[in-house]
Amino acid sequence: MATKVIVVGGGFAGLNAAKVLARNPQVEVLLLDRRNHHLFQPLLYQVATAGLSPAEIATPIRSVFSDFPNVRVLMEEVRGIDRQAKSVTTSSGSHDYDYLIIATGALHSYFGHDEWENFAPGLKTVEQATEIRRRILFAFEEAEKINDPHLQKEWLSFVIVGGGPTGVELAGAIAEISRTTLEKDFRHIDPAQTRVLLIEAGPRLLAAFDESLSKRASRDLERMGVQTWTRTRVTEVTEDGVRFGGESVRARTVIWAAGVEASPLGKKLSTPLDRSGRVIVEKDLSLPNDPHVFVIGDLAAFEEKPGKYLPGLAPVAMQEGRAAGRNILLDLKGRPREAFRYVDKGIMATIGRRRAIMEVGKLRVGGILAWYAWLFIHIFYLIGFKSRLFVFMQWAWSYLTFKRGARLIVDKDWRLTKG
Amino acid sequence: MATKVIVVGGGFAGLNAAKVLARNPQVEVLLLDRRNHHLFQPLLYQVATAGLSPAEIATPIRSVFSDFPNVRVLMEEVRGIDRQAKSVTTSSGSHDYDYLIIATGALHSYFGHDEWENFAPGLKTVEQATEIRRRILFAFEEAEKINDPHLQKEWLSFVIVGGGPTGVELAGAIAEISRTTLEKDFRHIDPAQTRVLLIEAGPRLLAAFDESLSKRASRDLERMGVQTWTRTRVTEVTEDGVRFGGESVRARTVIWAAGVEASPLGKKLSTPLDRSGRVIVEKDLSLPNDPHVFVIGDLAAFEEKPGKYLPGLAPVAMQEGRAAGRNILLDLKGRPREAFRYVDKGIMATIGRRRAIMEVGKLRVGGILAWYAWLFIHIFYLIGFKSRLFVFMQWAWSYLTFKRGARLIVDKDWRLTKG
Repeated sequence: MATKVIVVGGGFAGLNAAKVLARNPQVEVLLLDRRNHHLFQPLLYQVATAGLSPAEIATPIRSVFSDFPNVRVLMEEVRGIDRQAKSVTTSSGSHDYDYLIIATGALHSYFGHDEWENFAPGLKTVEQATEIRRRILFAFEEAEKINDPHLQKEWLSFVIVGGGPTGVELAGAIAEISRTTLEKDFRHIDPAQTRVLLIEAGPRLLAAFDESLSKRASRDLERMGVQTWTRTRVTEVTEDGVRFGGESVRARTVIWAAGVEASPLGKKLSTPLDRSGRVIVEKDLSLPNDPHVFVIGDLAAFEEKPGKYLPGLAPVAMQEGRAAGRNILLDLKGRPREAFRYVDKGIMATIGRRRAIMEVGKLRVGGILAWYAWLFIHIFYLIGFKSRLFVFMQWAWSYLTFKRGARLIVDKDWRLTKG
Repeated sequence: MATKVIVVGGGFAGLNAAKVLARNPQVEVLLLDRRNHHLFQPLLYQVATAGLSPAEIATPIRSVFSDFPNVRVLMEEVRGIDRQAKSVTTSSGSHDYDYLIIATGALHSYFGHDEWENFAPGLKTVEQATEIRRRILFAFEEAEKINDPHLQKEWLSFVIVGGGPTGVELAGAIAEISRTTLEKDFRHIDPAQTRVLLIEAGPRLLAAFDESLSKRASRDLERMGVQTWTRTRVTEVTEDGVRFGGESVRARTVIWAAGVEASPLGKKLSTPLDRSGRVIVEKDLSLPNDPHVFVIGDLAAFEEKPGKYLPGLAPVAMQEGRAAGRNILLDLKGRPREAFRYVDKGIMATIGRRRAIMEVGKLRVGGILAWYAWLFIHIFYLIGFKSRLFVFMQWAWSYLTFKRGARLIVDKDWRLTKG
C-alpha cells in the first residue's frame, strides 16, 4: 500500500519536500495550501513597486505537479491536527497520513498592535503587494491634485518601518520610482520632492550582514534619496503618520517590514516552541517525540550550533524541504535518517539599480557586481522556464527605459459604480 | 492665451482626442479619468480567463503623455458640468474650459436587476476581470475537493449570459481552459466534464455579423464543447444558478455579457439622449446647441445614415476621438469643421485557438485565417511597444504549451489572516 504524506504549505519548504517525494510512485502526496499559487517571495517587493506583475512571480501549485499523478493538490486551510489519530482536518473533511510535513511559514507581526495594519500593510502575499502598489501610486495621484503644500508633502512622504532586506528593497525602489520613472509624468508636483524614510529600531540596517556592508547599503540609500533613521522605535501608526516616542512624521503611506512571527499552526501541535513561536525540531527535522511529523521552513527552529538557530531564509527552507522528503524516503527503504546540514551559500540584498550587497563566507561584495549576482540568482531560481524568461525581459526593459511595467491602480471593489 | 480643453475619459475615444490636441502647444489639455490607466478592452476577456496579466493590457494614462508638457492628467471623477459657466466640477475643485470632450463610454446593464451583479459580474474593468478569473479558477478548486457529484457538477457549470463578442470569447476561452490547460492538473475531477453554457436572448449569436458567420461561430463553439441556447431570456440570477422563465440551470459561476448602457454622465448634460441613454451628437460630434462640447465614443449616438447609428466599437471611438480633436484645431485656425465620417474597416470576433470570424464589407472569413488577422490587428493596436511585444510572447508561449500564464486566485481582502 502507498505511503500517505500530507504536506501543509506550498512555499519554498513544502514545495521542495513534495517534489522529492513525488518522484517515488509508492508515495501518495497530498499538498494543502490556502492559496492556489506558489509565490516567489524574494521578488514580491517588485510587485509592490510596480516593476513586475503578480503572475510573473507566482505559479499555480497544481501545475508544478501536472506530471505527477501521485501528487494531489487541494486549496484548503488546515483546521486541526490529530497526531494520535494521524489525521489532518480541513474545511472539506479529514485526511489521514503516515507522515506529515508542516511548512506554513511566518506572518508579519505588529508586536501586539494589529490595529496598525490598516495604516501600514505588510508584504507577504500578492494581495498585500497590490495593495501597497495601489497606495504608492495613489499617493502621487493625490499629490498632483492638491494645492495645499503641506498636504501635498504628506502625500509625498513614504515611511517604511523595518531596515531588513524587505525594508531596504522597498525604500530603494520607491526612491527610484519617484526620481526616474515618474519624473516626466507629473505637471503639478516634482516627484523628486518625494521623502522616503526608512525606520529601523536597531543600531544599523541589514543586521544579518557584516557591518561594512551594512554601512555601504546606508550610503547607497542616502545617495538615492532615502533618509535612514536607526535606533528609532515606532510607538504609534495612524492614518496620517507615525510616532516614535517624542518625535513624529506625517506621511500618508506607511509600509510595515518590521516584525515576523511564526504561523499559528505551530501552536496546534502541542510541542515545544521557541520565543517567536517557531517549532523546535530534531536534527532530522521531525518533532522531538513524533518521527512522523516534520516541521520545516520559517516555522521551524533548527539549532545549527548550540544556541544558534537557522534564520528564515528561502535557501534554508528549500534545503530543509528536500531533506525532510529524503528522510521519509530513507524510512521507506529501511535506512537510517540523515541529520540536516545547512549549506550556507551566503546572503544578499538589493538596494537599487546596480546596487546590492552580498556576503559569502568571508567574501563581502557591494555595488554592481553584487547586483548582477543578485539578478542572476533570482532569475535562476524563479520556478518554471516561462517566469524566468519573462521576468528577465521585464527587467531588461525596465533597465533600459527606466519605466515600470505594472503601474496599475486597481480598486478593492470590482462592482459597478454608477453615477 | 492657451485654449483650454478638458477631456473626460481616457478610453479609446478620449485618449485619441487628447493625442491629436497634444501636438499643438497652444492647447492646454486636462485629461480626467477615474482610473490611472487606459485599458485595451478588446483583450480584457484574456485577463478574465487567466491568459494575460492586467498590466499587459493597461498603460498608465499619464505615461502616454510624458513628452507633452501641455497635457495634464488627473485621476478624478467628474461631479458636475456647468455649460453656461464652461466649467467642470470634480472632487478636487472646478476646472474651466474653452472646449469640453466627453468620452466616458458605457457600462454593462442588468436591465433594472442590479441585484444580479453579485452573482453574475460583468466585464468592463480590470477589477471585474480579476474577479471573474478568481471565480473561474476557484470553481475548479472547489470541485476538486467535493465528493458529492451533484455539487461538483454545479461548480463545474459555467453560464455566460449574452451572445455578443464578449460572451463568445469568454465561453470559448473557458471551454479551452477546461479541456486543455487544466487537463493534467486535477486528480479528482475531469475538467473536461465542465459544462459551458452560452445564453442569448435573440435568435442567433453575434448578431452584428452576417448570418453565415454567426452559424460558423456556433458550430465552432459546439465543437469546443460550448452549449449554446438562443432565444433564451434570463429571468432570475441567484447564488446557485440562473432561471429562464420555466427552465433553470444550476451553476456556481455566472458571467454577465448581455446589456450595455451609456455612462450616466450623459444625463448631466441636459441635451437629448437616445433610448439607451446615449447623447445625440451633430455631424461634427458636438452637442446640438453647444459647439464647445463634444461627445464621442460609446456615449455618443452618431447618426451615420437616417435611422442608423454607429455601434459601440473601439474603431468608432478611436476615429471619433481624432475627429473631435481635429475639429477643435480647425476652430483655432479659423477654418470650418469637418463632418465626421466613419471608415468601416470591418468587424471581427475570436472564438478560440485558431478560430475567429471576420467581416470586411462583402468579405466574410472564418477559421484560422480570420484568427491570424485578429491576432495581428489586436497586437498592433495595443498601445506602446512594450505591451505589444510582451503580449505577443505571452500568446506564443500559451499557444505552444497550452498553458495560461496568469492562473492566480487573488483574494479580495489583503489583510493578514491569523489562525
